Amino acid sequence: MKPTITAFERSPDRGRGLSRDTRVRWALEEVGQPYEVRLVSFGALKEPAHRAIHPFGQIPTYEDGKGLALFETGAIVFHIAQTHEGLLPEDPQARARAVTWMFAALSTIEPPILELQTAKFAEGQKPWAAERMPLVLDRIRDRLRELSAHLGEADWLDGAFSAGDLMMVSVLLRLRPSGVLEEFPNLAAYVARGEARPAYQRAFAAQLAVFTAAEAV
Amino acid sequence: MKPTITAFERSPDRGRGLSRDTRVRWALEEVGQPYEVRLVSFGALKEPAHRAIHPFGQIPTYEDGKGLALFETGAIVFHIAQTHEGLLPEDPQARARAVTWMFAALSTIEPPILELQTAKFAEGQKPWAAERMPLVLDRIRDRLRELSAHLGEADWLDGAFSAGDLMMVSVLLRLRPSGVLEEFPNLAAYVARGEARPAYQRAFAAQLAVFTAAEAV
Repeated sequence: MKPTITAFERSPDRGRGLSRDTRVRWALEEVGQPYEVRLVSFGALKEPAHRAIHPFGQIPTYEDGKGLALFETGAIVFHIAQTHEGLLPEDPQARARAVTWMFAALSTIEPPILELQTAKFAEGQKPWAAERMPLVLDRIRDRLRELSAHLGEADWLDGAFSAGDLMMVSVLLRLRPSGVLEEFPNLAAYVARGEARPAYQRAFAAQLAVFTAAEAV
Repeated sequence: MKPTITAFERSPDRGRGLSRDTRVRWALEEVGQPYEVRLVSFGALKEPAHRAIHPFGQIPTYEDGKGLALFETGAIVFHIAQTHEGLLPEDPQARARAVTWMFAALSTIEPPILELQTAKFAEGQKPWAAERMPLVLDRIRDRLRELSAHLGEADWLDGAFSAGDLMMVSVLLRLRPSGVLEEFPNLAAYVARGEARPAYQRAFAAQLAVFTAAEAV
């Protein structure tokens, strides 16, 4: 039985792949697990039926068809990685380190990037927007400098590609419109390596197809 | 062999228990695992020796004495929960849901709370500070309203106390100085239940003892 994930009926990023279902699609593609997608309108996200599986009224969710319903992208990707081969190393120490990078992507790198989203979209018309923006960007740069120093010339964060890289690349992709990623050439190359993976390409194409179909209606 | 964690030599919150080592101490206390603490000065955090185990130059870290070194509070608490009994249910579905709440605490609830910290401490003297603060607080309220609706009258987020509750209570504790937590009585009671646990009490006392000893010098 295929798992079912949820995605936006009409992606607010217009198919650029930044909605979080792309991360889950990518994980499923990496492990070769076929899946179904249930599209959810913005209105339906906040209805009790959806809230019953996602208390915060967002996408993605993951239902395994055997009674398990999960929300939170990190938890879903971790569950996929735990229950399939291909996204976490077998060695327990290497596995714990890969999980560490998943948490680092979500807890250390993504929060200042979310602040940038808020500064642009929720506060972009506020009187302080222009003066405040350099502070927001500098907090991101502080983190990227450290991440860049850790990565060095390596292809991936800790040995072979893992769910930690999948999550870190996905988080860094949100920075592309800002131009900040390009200030760190090894991180820009790292993200490009992630995007070049066939599994990412399939995930990106699948989410884009949803947006294109919605536009054609 | 006891694991070793790192903590601030002198806690910037003056022993109020909000530094992230408290979360790791709490997890270790819940599972009954004795541990050692290595105190790190602010200067040493940014030195290569510490960066070798924490690329972002922060605390806590976790070394198991058998060659494994981890950073990221979420990853450390998860590793403790995976390798000991008492913080995650045995049933695989319940276990996946408990892990989901760990990620929800760190990825959904904590980011707007971190924005509040930034607004107060990094931008508290900026000309926009007073006018912007209500926006920051309202973004937190939006999340707490949803969390409060999910929790309802239950004691914990999903059945018995788990690592998901440990992380959620720890994140919500950061809100106490703001007064926002008290706007949601069931969440305030939830946090109080967490704080009342003997394991939390021992963790809190241990971090406070470090601060008190440093002050006495």
